[in-house]
Amino acid sequence: MHKKNTIDIEMFDTTLRDGAQGAGISFSVQDKLAIIGTLDELGLSWIEAGNPGSNPKDSDFFRSAKKIKLRHAVLCAFGSTRKKNLSVKDDAQIASLLSAETETITLFGKSSALHVKDVLKASLEENLDMIAETISFLRAEGRNVIYDAEHFFDGWKLNGEYALKTLRTAFFAGAQRIILCDTNGGSFPNTIREGFAAVNDMFEAEIQSGGGKPPPSLRASVTTLPPSPGGSAPKPPNRPILGIHAHNDMGLALACSLTALEAGCTHVQGTLLGFGERCGNTPLAALIPSIELKLGQRCLPEGRLERLSELSRRVAEISNINVQDQMPYIGSQAFSHKAGMHADGVLKASASFEHISPALVGNVRHFLMSEQGGRSAIVERLRLMGENVDRDSPLISKISRKLKELESGGWQFEGADASFEILARKMIGSFKSRFSVLAYRAVSEHPSGEKLECCYAWAKVLVEGQTEIAAAEGDGPVNAMDGALRRALSRFFPVLKEIRLSDYKVRVIDGNDATAAQVRVLIESSDGASIWTTVGVSTDIIEASCIALVDAIEYKLNR
Amino acid sequence: MHKKNTIDIEMFDTTLRDGAQGAGISFSVQDKLAIIGTLDELGLSWIEAGNPGSNPKDSDFFRSAKKIKLRHAVLCAFGSTRKKNLSVKDDAQIASLLSAETETITLFGKSSALHVKDVLKASLEENLDMIAETISFLRAEGRNVIYDAEHFFDGWKLNGEYALKTLRTAFFAGAQRIILCDTNGGSFPNTIREGFAAVNDMFEAEIQSGGGKPPPSLRASVTTLPPSPGGSAPKPPNRPILGIHAHNDMGLALACSLTALEAGCTHVQGTLLGFGERCGNTPLAALIPSIELKLGQRCLPEGRLERLSELSRRVAEISNINVQDQMPYIGSQAFSHKAGMHADGVLKASASFEHISPALVGNVRHFLMSEQGGRSAIVERLRLMGENVDRDSPLISKISRKLKELESGGWQFEGADASFEILARKMIGSFKSRFSVLAYRAVSEHPSGEKLECCYAWAKVLVEGQTEIAAAEGDGPVNAMDGALRRALSRFFPVLKEIRLSDYKVRVIDGNDATAAQVRVLIESSDGASIWTTVGVSTDIIEASCIALVDAIEYKLNR
Repeated sequence: MHKKNTIDIEMFDTTLRDGAQGAGISFSVQDKLAIIGTLDELGLSWIEAGNPGSNPKDSDFFRSAKKIKLRHAVLCAFGSTRKKNLSVKDDAQIASLLSAETETITLFGKSSALHVKDVLKASLEENLDMIAETISFLRAEGRNVIYDAEHFFDGWKLNGEYALKTLRTAFFAGAQRIILCDTNGGSFPNTIREGFAAVNDMFEAEIQSGGGKPPPSLRASVTTLPPSPGGSAPKPPNRPILGIHAHNDMGLALACSLTALEAGCTHVQGTLLGFGERCGNTPLAALIPSIELKLGQRCLPEGRLERLSELSRRVAEISNINVQDQMPYIGSQAFSHKAGMHADGVLKASASFEHISPALVGNVRHFLMSEQGGRSAIVERLRLMGENVDRDSPLISKISRKLKELESGGWQFEGADASFEILARKMIGSFKSRFSVLAYRAVSEHPSGEKLECCYAWAKVLVEGQTEIAAAEGDGPVNAMDGALRRALSRFFPVLKEIRLSDYKVRVIDGNDATAAQVRVLIESSDGASIWTTVGVSTDIIEASCIALVDAIEYKLNR
Repeated sequence: MHKKNTIDIEMFDTTLRDGAQGAGISFSVQDKLAIIGTLDELGLSWIEAGNPGSNPKDSDFFRSAKKIKLRHAVLCAFGSTRKKNLSVKDDAQIASLLSAETETITLFGKSSALHVKDVLKASLEENLDMIAETISFLRAEGRNVIYDAEHFFDGWKLNGEYALKTLRTAFFAGAQRIILCDTNGGSFPNTIREGFAAVNDMFEAEIQSGGGKPPPSLRASVTTLPPSPGGSAPKPPNRPILGIHAHNDMGLALACSLTALEAGCTHVQGTLLGFGERCGNTPLAALIPSIELKLGQRCLPEGRLERLSELSRRVAEISNINVQDQMPYIGSQAFSHKAGMHADGVLKASASFEHISPALVGNVRHFLMSEQGGRSAIVERLRLMGENVDRDSPLISKISRKLKELESGGWQFEGADASFEILARKMIGSFKSRFSVLAYRAVSEHPSGEKLECCYAWAKVLVEGQTEIAAAEGDGPVNAMDGALRRALSRFFPVLKEIRLSDYKVRVIDGNDATAAQVRVLIESSDGASIWTTVGVSTDIIEASCIALVDAIEYKLNR
């Protein structure tokens, strides 16, 4: 039995289409394939992967995508109803859509009389023909159709009768799923509730008057229908599966999607991380846990929810976008406690300041190491490091004061656990520095001289009374500096070969001083088995990087 | 007449208290004063500025705050009910709270039986005494009290009778405002609706049974009450003003706050930009426009809404946090259009893909210059630059292809209008380069040698056949490089003295290559009259910065 049959609410991800319309988002074919694999691993029901009719890159992509075997998700191509004054057979956009060769096509059409008149510049009747003919044609070509009713809610408020007529037209032409879109993101949940009620009423009346028989086009093709939600075998549909497609322009995309579910909708469109035009689409990663954990309805196959944080972060990484720290459920701060009182409360009773256990979504609790963190958080962090220090020890106050002082100078240990550990161990006296950097120079020059690369550096280190100097070239001065430092140290510590720098971030702390501002560098290192993060702060990016590099190496050598 | 009398819904900002509990947030006294000034300029009703009883820094702050004159907002200090087993007069926390000398105090107490037992480890009766005694004491000291019912909704679901009793206790002890808090952010809007209904019913029943008379403590002090919402003169209250305090752990803080307003609440607590513990608080900047523009109720004095984007960004700048690009209403991408089809639609009818006009909240529309942007967006952007190029001109295709190529190499022009303009003008042939950089060298070394600062640079430029070389020291190698370049050029272009670099951002593009990754530098420049942004990309941060600096100077010289 197909896994999807156990799903109550279908999740439809459009990261690769609507998400790609977000600012700063651009996917290569490789990126797209990697994201599809990840979304399938998570167990989403549908993946909308591109718009082959408007973007030639997407046509190329669908050619590569034919080889992919998915375990859970069904891939769809996205396109629009035929052009006005053109036969559907002669429409190049429809031809590209078919050439993507997906079993299912998401087709959008206009529901709003305003859009038909002002944007499409067509008559209302013509638009209905465009919807009917395009869907009938795709169905005759053997495709399933998910119909996206663009601007449904705005159109329904403006001219309800016409908006409903577009949906009826789509259904009778053979669309199996009808998605009500709040394309501009300007609708309140109440409008979503009322709109769904009107659509439900219409299809109910249709069943009453037509004796509940499905339209001929559906009867003919009922066996090609994907399984409907709810786990039962496909029934001849006398009404479509309804879906919601919300946007976040008022910050209400999640609320609108949840309201739609209350109104009987069983299909939610969004993007895993909320990517999308303007303020973005419904962030599915923030919706799925609410549905599964709080409403008791299933969106993912068994056992996937606890991988949500990991797989969402993987999609972010492929997209080269940072997951928002404050993102519900999966953000790095979603279960972080900074106020001493809260840290204290969570240690006494985890439900006291956490609405769910972070492990349920594969996230973890943090006690932020900051001046506000309070003694409990520091004590708990030291305990995890294996240092048992009493809550009332003067050492705890000393560490707290030191954090405060460093934070006011631009340091932050909230994301740099390894640097915090080194700092704390130095104060406890359980840390032994294994080397020091006596001197270095990093140069960037253009054009390059002296038969060197444009960037080069040397570093001199001291290890147990012995010095060593080494030089390296690099892609940039920081990279050259990193190379020189490692070379100089590797004579003494061959274990350094195992360390790989896996991430490097730079944050300008006070942008207003422009190029003279302080920079904070965060370096993530890995030895294959574990990952640790260190921090450095300076007005000089080379020095800040050097501080973080030294901590990263010291951390490894001290374990 | 006090301005606040025209307000329908009071906005209560706790950026400086709950917001300061967010990760990565730390305020100096100067920051706090600047933020208070900005929030007052925006015209919010209340500003909660700190917790003097738990944070000594906040006590210092309230001493400085006494001198501030606010036009709209009322400043409050935040604290908790007295400790168990302690007389309120002997409680040091209460003493610090009073020493802040604010007219109004926000006092939080426990509503949840779970918290009373497991966190406070007190009896249910004792907690009621703590609430009653603390509020009566503060009222006797002449203070107004806003009572924050911590964990109200969770507590109400667990033990509704007790949760309601805590509110009644607070009201009869003299609290004029009662705020229902969803402290863990785990409640759905339906729970908020039901909770408010229960509280309304309770106070209604109280009025029926007690003949509608206010409790003695309120009758005695009615003249010191701040004006109630609605514009009328203060009436003897027979029920408290109700407020909502939501958290965003399910991404529903805005929806919960709007639901509370439907239930008769007239006071909303949040933080302007959504800062706060875990997933943050209700972002007031994303709520106010929905209430004012869509529900027709007033939260701000006349004429302030159109300054919302500017003043929100100022708060972000003081806080050293970037406003999320996708933030509803005020984010830089809130009205950005990337898909060609959308850009096309908006140019035909702005309502087609925008739910409000961006000017209403002081934001602006952008057409993102990207491969997806389509011809319309490029044509429109060129038109704004004063270049009228036909939509079907091969030049448009050429620019589109060039953007695509550069974007795949890590460039982004979406935030770098000036660099896009230079690129486009070069392709059109209307750009004249005024200088070139022949060579440069930037050095960072520790310890410093040759009687130099640790960072120094030289640059050699060519201007109309003449060369010039100059050197500079700096706080970092980029700063030194900037200095050298400006010195070398200023002989030819004295106008450069007017240019100030106002912001500098660095983004590591592919973090996985760590220190060898590409970096993208964005530089914002200002000449006092206008602001422009340029971009540079390289594996070498010095080179990337140099590219962006050259564009920034060329842009100025070409105007």
